[in-house]
Amino acid sequence: MSDSTHTPEACDLLIEAGYVVPVEPHAVVLEDHAVAVDGGRIVAVLPRGEARARFAPRQSVSRPQAALIPGLVNAHTHNPMTLLRGIADDLPLMTWLREHIWPVEAAVIGPEFVADGTTLGIAEMLRGGTTCANENYFFADVQAAVYKQHGFRARVGSVIIDFPSAWAKSDDEYFARAGELHDQWRGDPLIGTAFAPHAPYTVSDANFERVRMLSDQLEVPVHLHTHETAQEISDSLKLHGQRPLARLERLGLVNDRLIAVHMTQLTEGEIQLCAERGVHVVHCPESNLKLASGFCPACALVRAGVNLAIGTDGCASNNDLDMFSESRTAAILAKAVAQDATALDAATTLRAATLGGARALGFGEEVGSIEPGKQADLACVDLSALETQPLHHVLSQLVYAAGRHQVSDVWIAGQPKLVQRELVGMDEAAIVANARQWRDRIRSSRA
Amino acid sequence: MSDSTHTPEACDLLIEAGYVVPVEPHAVVLEDHAVAVDGGRIVAVLPRGEARARFAPRQSVSRPQAALIPGLVNAHTHNPMTLLRGIADDLPLMTWLREHIWPVEAAVIGPEFVADGTTLGIAEMLRGGTTCANENYFFADVQAAVYKQHGFRARVGSVIIDFPSAWAKSDDEYFARAGELHDQWRGDPLIGTAFAPHAPYTVSDANFERVRMLSDQLEVPVHLHTHETAQEISDSLKLHGQRPLARLERLGLVNDRLIAVHMTQLTEGEIQLCAERGVHVVHCPESNLKLASGFCPACALVRAGVNLAIGTDGCASNNDLDMFSESRTAAILAKAVAQDATALDAATTLRAATLGGARALGFGEEVGSIEPGKQADLACVDLSALETQPLHHVLSQLVYAAGRHQVSDVWIAGQPKLVQRELVGMDEAAIVANARQWRDRIRSSRA
Repeated sequence: MSDSTHTPEACDLLIEAGYVVPVEPHAVVLEDHAVAVDGGRIVAVLPRGEARARFAPRQSVSRPQAALIPGLVNAHTHNPMTLLRGIADDLPLMTWLREHIWPVEAAVIGPEFVADGTTLGIAEMLRGGTTCANENYFFADVQAAVYKQHGFRARVGSVIIDFPSAWAKSDDEYFARAGELHDQWRGDPLIGTAFAPHAPYTVSDANFERVRMLSDQLEVPVHLHTHETAQEISDSLKLHGQRPLARLERLGLVNDRLIAVHMTQLTEGEIQLCAERGVHVVHCPESNLKLASGFCPACALVRAGVNLAIGTDGCASNNDLDMFSESRTAAILAKAVAQDATALDAATTLRAATLGGARALGFGEEVGSIEPGKQADLACVDLSALETQPLHHVLSQLVYAAGRHQVSDVWIAGQPKLVQRELVGMDEAAIVANARQWRDRIRSSRA
Repeated sequence: MSDSTHTPEACDLLIEAGYVVPVEPHAVVLEDHAVAVDGGRIVAVLPRGEARARFAPRQSVSRPQAALIPGLVNAHTHNPMTLLRGIADDLPLMTWLREHIWPVEAAVIGPEFVADGTTLGIAEMLRGGTTCANENYFFADVQAAVYKQHGFRARVGSVIIDFPSAWAKSDDEYFARAGELHDQWRGDPLIGTAFAPHAPYTVSDANFERVRMLSDQLEVPVHLHTHETAQEISDSLKLHGQRPLARLERLGLVNDRLIAVHMTQLTEGEIQLCAERGVHVVHCPESNLKLASGFCPACALVRAGVNLAIGTDGCASNNDLDMFSESRTAAILAKAVAQDATALDAATTLRAATLGGARALGFGEEVGSIEPGKQADLACVDLSALETQPLHHVLSQLVYAAGRHQVSDVWIAGQPKLVQRELVGMDEAAIVANARQWRDRIRSSRA
């Protein structure tokens, strides 16, 4: 359809890649394609030759050995805790919390800790191809500002918990802070907010009802740890006479705004309920394994039609923000749990790590796939290294063999964030030096 | 104890590291230490200051931001299959074998394929800190020669299987080839041999008895896939009236020369038997998950006193030779399987990936830990990247956060194999180009 007299269209950026994996349509790999970006949005996905004829880009990037994928969506994180990476591993949950995490948090938590941890987390995520995070920690106001400062897309959850913290002293104060956060960021193109009631065992019926009402009125998601352990289920049965999901159902929270994280304990009926109501499930396989929480039936959820997303959880438990590793673990673990080697195949796994996450966060119309009209949140994965050779199958290589260090370039809303492995607008040496001084401060606080 | 008049001792190499993790003694991290190497062997492990006073090394390497660990031991591999990486994923086992792996192998297998795949595997292993492999594939003679050529330590198993292959046409030919291999490499400082009867379901009693007799006479290990799947157990019960381990016990093979790979199906009694007889178990968690084989009770084995090693399995199923990822998966999966967050802690996991592997292969006196007198098989892991900051706990960071791309330097028997991420004596571009031509050849063979 080339017209020798046509005038090329201007666009901000043309990215040519050996392989473009759009995620939507599903399981497709486009060889020698290009993605044109203008005003932060994708304007076309087309063969390289056509792209060169059609566009006059202000900037061109050519990555013939790479796969261009949608930026990964980390659908459950506590990024300020990146500063606590590896501080107390291989311990029972209650020892870990009571003797390590809580005392350290009591000593150091505050706006500075939250800002610095979030910054470290953003740098780590960008270097690993992640362009969007679902955040869940105290001082949501500080986090939102830091994400915005670095042009990183995030859904920032305001914690609601029945106990006082450095962030809020009472139920009313938690809700007041959540309201202020929402008010401040309403309509922002990068930052969304959410309610983050901590978990069924730390939030009262009354507070859940308030969350339900406000999330309905404001149309924001509810980001909740639930059905994480067998203990949570048995405790709920004792205290409420119901499993947590039944209790949430009674309280009106089981709907398509619910981002249900972990979900290792699920009956067939609960899986069906999630499918019918459009509940989004965030699978955090490495956290579930490391904390001995249990096994999320990821394949059964997908086969029932539930939207599945993937999250790393926080670095104090996991201990990284590596969505490549997390996706791979999700893919292989699902097979053993389902006793079916065809479970959660490579394409389905990549979809969960991108579009599934975007949909869970309520960003599905804007990001999660490489489609015209969507924001240009993109990651380039170099496949030329010998660890990803020979290249028989691009999707297999991305999920089962590639590592996050093979991410060469990242864009968010068309803005370059990582170029040939170098962070743009972030001082890597300063971030590392800052992490080191936090290690020393935390060490002194425990002495 | 410095003596101002002493003459410094000459040595070939002094490696100074921010952290030396010797593995033996267990769970120890030595800060600012050095390892002196002479004639390929470790001569001392001591504080940096003392090392500088005592030695006059011909070469010095300083890695203040890195942890020096024993080279990792990949205790179960099929490295020629690296050329089949990702060729057919997400399929049921029999479809995978019958429609993909066997036809491809029939088309391409031979000395050239085996040599090229092994070379690619060696390069990948070195770049990931692995210095020793337990190999199991056809054309063991070709593999042994390639490992030797690159100065890579390996235990090379001669496949024994009840079916003809490109490698041997009859039982007698399989045993003849195994005997020749052993004869050729007897006494070699880098290459050892083993019998590799494929699996209980592909090897007759008569052939197992021959393996038993020869392995006893020649004192070489028996490298065997077993108790990999529930199907293997039920088939053995039908055919032999015994579970595979009981059958092997009847045939005299359950002893400290048995390297039992996979072992996802184990009773309490079988775990006890393995402990009593000194059987070595190689855990391949990612292969077991990806092929939906089951869950090896890694923690129960260790707690029973069984020597545990870790292997990646072949790249056609796994799809990499990444011992960092494999160890991390082993550590976190063990916790979920044992329902105990303290299971297989970081130190125990690193031990399995080094000394456990060395002992399983019969190389425990020579490698697997950083101790004076042992061969200098070493890997340096840079921990300065922001993905491994802050550095609260070196062992946690190595197992739970570090990636194989953080390996900066590798030595085998004191010889540099990787220096600041560059392979020594291997042409990376040529290896990649060669992998590409295999992709094309394999693609044509399937057209």
